[in-house]
Amino acid sequence: MLQNIRVILVNTSHPGNIGGAARAMKNMGLSRLVLVDPEDFPSAEAVARASGANDILDNAQVVATLEEALVGCSLVLGTSARDRRIPWPLLDPRECGAAACEHAGQGAEVALVFGREYAGLTNDELQRCHFHVHIPSDPEFSSLNLAAAVQVLGYEVRMAWLAAQGLPTKVEKFEVTSVRSGQLATMDEMELFYGHLESTLVAIGFLDPEKPRHLMSRLRRLFGRSAVNKSEMNILRGILTEAQKAARGEPHKRRDDDV
Amino acid sequence: MLQNIRVILVNTSHPGNIGGAARAMKNMGLSRLVLVDPEDFPSAEAVARASGANDILDNAQVVATLEEALVGCSLVLGTSARDRRIPWPLLDPRECGAAACEHAGQGAEVALVFGREYAGLTNDELQRCHFHVHIPSDPEFSSLNLAAAVQVLGYEVRMAWLAAQGLPTKVEKFEVTSVRSGQLATMDEMELFYGHLESTLVAIGFLDPEKPRHLMSRLRRLFGRSAVNKSEMNILRGILTEAQKAARGEPHKRRDDDV
Repeated sequence: MLQNIRVILVNTSHPGNIGGAARAMKNMGLSRLVLVDPEDFPSAEAVARASGANDILDNAQVVATLEEALVGCSLVLGTSARDRRIPWPLLDPRECGAAACEHAGQGAEVALVFGREYAGLTNDELQRCHFHVHIPSDPEFSSLNLAAAVQVLGYEVRMAWLAAQGLPTKVEKFEVTSVRSGQLATMDEMELFYGHLESTLVAIGFLDPEKPRHLMSRLRRLFGRSAVNKSEMNILRGILTEAQKAARGEPHKRRDDDV
Repeated sequence: MLQNIRVILVNTSHPGNIGGAARAMKNMGLSRLVLVDPEDFPSAEAVARASGANDILDNAQVVATLEEALVGCSLVLGTSARDRRIPWPLLDPRECGAAACEHAGQGAEVALVFGREYAGLTNDELQRCHFHVHIPSDPEFSSLNLAAAVQVLGYEVRMAWLAAQGLPTKVEKFEVTSVRSGQLATMDEMELFYGHLESTLVAIGFLDPEKPRHLMSRLRRLFGRSAVNKSEMNILRGILTEAQKAARGEPHKRRDDDV
């Protein structure tokens, strides 16, 4: 299905961006690159930035016009800046990924078209697209690097593809809503706690500094996962302090109470 | 809210990646960059790749250890390769963006931590994170460029932020499900149609080649939006052929029937 989706780069100036785009494509499982009138290709800089995605550069199709690049495509999605001179049906990257996968999944050919580094796509080129795609960026600084734009759309295509295949987007499942916010202990407070815990475990003879095994790692995982809040932290630190006193043979609270 | 989210790059080798990360951050509305023991910074290459995001580089905080970089943070999200040596609560980029925004929205400090270009984060560094984040990539070619990884997580943070602010992810709304797939006319067939349409409009005297205005542009928009299928295309081409005959003064079907 992903092989039905081609990435088209129009009149790219910098070969490094072609290499970066090839790497981003291969990372996301896309393989078909079409270059319309590239200024400098093939290029050693492209190979360097591709860092291993050489097959995509080697198999890249170089053509003279966007029209040639689009032959056979029945869904064309073109990237566009927010301030477009012509109104057109617009998708965000997530809708773009969903549309590309739905269409490609039915065996049709899809094109993701990216314009020049500085000027983007011309009005004539934009008019050959069924939809325009805008990556939501800060209006004050809206122009993404070309390879970065390929990365974002490639990522959304892969997310949609994984969903369509019934594949997980990650190895494990974790409930985000269980992250408690607000009064959680800060990382520096957690580090002080881990230091206190370790010295205490040594003091009470539970942790052997010579053979620590992965004890602290396991404890870090445990407390890290539980997202300790500040009041719980005070309790834990208090326990450790008392444990250290006990290890030093000092009388602890319970004994005082007994007296 | 976004100002509560800091991006931490650990022991980065290539200054170009620091610049690329700064640009990606500024595009997505993130401003706080922390560099842990960078190999080469400040650097002209970083400024070049930042292409305008100089303020982020100028204000970047450089520290010696991840521990210093995390001071004040109560949610730490660390990027990790799929084949992690230690099991840990894992988020995909979308869950990462949601968790970061939920937490930052409550005034807490959030850190997005990115490791070395080749080695990523060490086990010790990964253990300082509440969650690990894996960008779903092709297992055969899974290592993203550092700036590309910052771009993907920054994008998901921005998508979550826009949703939290009740802001649209794009200017217009368009129903993706209305894209009919399968037997749509291909772009080359559409181009032949537009050519036929234009010559016909000239032939019938509706389009003045001297003063075309934006007629063809408007017609391209219309037909592009309607996603013409192959049988509709045959009908349209048939209509044009008959219109051209009429313009040439040839008898058209109706008249034949009348006889």
